Amino acid sequence: MIRAWAAHEAGGKLTPFEYDPGPLPDDEVEIAVETCGLCHSDMSLVDDEWNISAYPLVPGHEIVGRIVEAGPAVKHLKVGDRVGVGWFAHSCLGCHTCMSGQHNLCADATGVASAKKGRFGGFAERVRAQGAWAIPIPDGVDAAKAGPLFCGGLTVFYPFVHYGIRPTDRVGIIGIGGLGHMALKFARAWGCEVTAFTSSPGKEEEAKSLGAHRVVNSRDKDALKAERGRFDMVLSTVNVPLEWARYVQALAPDGRLNFVGAATEPMGLAPIALMGGQAQLSATSVGTPAIAATMLEFCARHGIAPQTEHMKMSQINEAFDHLREGKARYRIVLENDFA
Amino acid sequence: MIRAWAAHEAGGKLTPFEYDPGPLPDDEVEIAVETCGLCHSDMSLVDDEWNISAYPLVPGHEIVGRIVEAGPAVKHLKVGDRVGVGWFAHSCLGCHTCMSGQHNLCADATGVASAKKGRFGGFAERVRAQGAWAIPIPDGVDAAKAGPLFCGGLTVFYPFVHYGIRPTDRVGIIGIGGLGHMALKFARAWGCEVTAFTSSPGKEEEAKSLGAHRVVNSRDKDALKAERGRFDMVLSTVNVPLEWARYVQALAPDGRLNFVGAATEPMGLAPIALMGGQAQLSATSVGTPAIAATMLEFCARHGIAPQTEHMKMSQINEAFDHLREGKARYRIVLENDFA
Repeated sequence: MIRAWAAHEAGGKLTPFEYDPGPLPDDEVEIAVETCGLCHSDMSLVDDEWNISAYPLVPGHEIVGRIVEAGPAVKHLKVGDRVGVGWFAHSCLGCHTCMSGQHNLCADATGVASAKKGRFGGFAERVRAQGAWAIPIPDGVDAAKAGPLFCGGLTVFYPFVHYGIRPTDRVGIIGIGGLGHMALKFARAWGCEVTAFTSSPGKEEEAKSLGAHRVVNSRDKDALKAERGRFDMVLSTVNVPLEWARYVQALAPDGRLNFVGAATEPMGLAPIALMGGQAQLSATSVGTPAIAATMLEFCARHGIAPQTEHMKMSQINEAFDHLREGKARYRIVLENDFA
Repeated sequence: MIRAWAAHEAGGKLTPFEYDPGPLPDDEVEIAVETCGLCHSDMSLVDDEWNISAYPLVPGHEIVGRIVEAGPAVKHLKVGDRVGVGWFAHSCLGCHTCMSGQHNLCADATGVASAKKGRFGGFAERVRAQGAWAIPIPDGVDAAKAGPLFCGGLTVFYPFVHYGIRPTDRVGIIGIGGLGHMALKFARAWGCEVTAFTSSPGKEEEAKSLGAHRVVNSRDKDALKAERGRFDMVLSTVNVPLEWARYVQALAPDGRLNFVGAATEPMGLAPIALMGGQAQLSATSVGTPAIAATMLEFCARHGIAPQTEHMKMSQINEAFDHLREGKARYRIVLENDFA
């Protein structure tokens, strides 16, 4: 049996829960959880915001731990290895998309916390994932703080690799939160000119300390207008509707507005609004196992770590409240205290 | 003085008009017009649909003719050369965008028919353009039919080059009209799998003769659903609102829905709708001088020409009516008959 923290209904509190994981599949590993970061999408899952949840639901998908058992088909990992697991725990590995290295877009990709598919997440003493999705943590990455890299970090790192952002590019980051603060660090280390868009003027100095060269108040329409034609990429980490036309106007020719925040309201943009500056819109979530490994190497080289607050896993409901209140600076990491 | 056909008010008929072009600027050429294609955007300009028109307005931006005078700064063209001119007649040539080869995105790029900037278009005996925007017509391209390549043709050719479409890709073309019929020819010659989306079932055989391997009835929701995940690029040549979410779903992972039709209604898409398949939205118009030259070479090699109907320039009002009635198959070319 595996002990865990589970929600038993939409929006419910998390309570202790045990489940029998059954025999370990050949291609999976079982991991003794050390820490697990708390992500906004854990709230979305618990609240069934996306209509994909089932209960009991064990959230948690920013997992770091050590392998305690490895299926016989897992050749590249061994018991004792410290690995991280993010949003996905499984993909088919055989489809054209997986075979092209884009496992995160596999039609059968399954979340580590997908109760509907019989999976339980990382707020637990142990968790399972396919070997392909368990990413070894290299020397030079502080494992205690690494959890949030596997969802939030990878989500903002991936577009830099996937869309070929260059060190000569100008990049804007909308939102300075769990994702945005890591995006600022990555963009700075990537060599780009980095602009933070924030609606909290109080965050200006902090944004700069996180890597921004410049800070623009996103509530100041004139300030936004003055950014016209500047950015090769604007990365939106928020999931609220903004006046996207202004950010499209802020793009340089061929610039890209990429959403990593799962905003659900229509953008209000007509094709003709993209035409003048040949703007591009796209949205990405998480990333691939290969790019996760690349990210860790980049973090080690540049000394990049998420800014974290640490609590015990038994404080999980307090942690959810802290996050719901918008007080996390910037990512909460829960440490396994199952006795 | 240059004799031409001009509209004198929004939506007005075209009547004979003469203007004094003044001395030829150093970097421009004057061209004796042989033919000029009639494009939907000529109607939009005459009707002031985009609120950018001024009158008298001489439309016409799919021009073929011979250089009769060249300014002293034009070194790569000479009197007698046969050239084509499309939407743009001028750009600054000095800005970062021009210097990067993306002259069509220059903030100062000026249309050949931009009456507001003192320019008059190709439904005339002569027309002027910057040397940079006058593209020599190579052997192997039938000059009599080449006019429509310079706006409609370039508009649909450009995305294939600019976005790196590969012969292994699956491409869908929405709309079989002035632009769409050329897109089908280009896509087929490019080596792609080519699907035509049309709301006119009667056009199925014709779409195939133009290059489509497959034809999908865009009014059949089940047929559209069955295309899920198929296309690396869908090119929309229409300017009416469609149910874009269905075309986004029809994209393969990382697929692109690119608009070349200047649709003005919001797309009704939320960022989250792009996220699952990592879809990309973009819009392009016309193209660069370098890619225009590349297109002509490609046309010569593959025997590609627009399908044209030919009338005399003095029949210009009949030609506009024919186009407004949706009867052009697929592009009207007017032959200069100024005596």
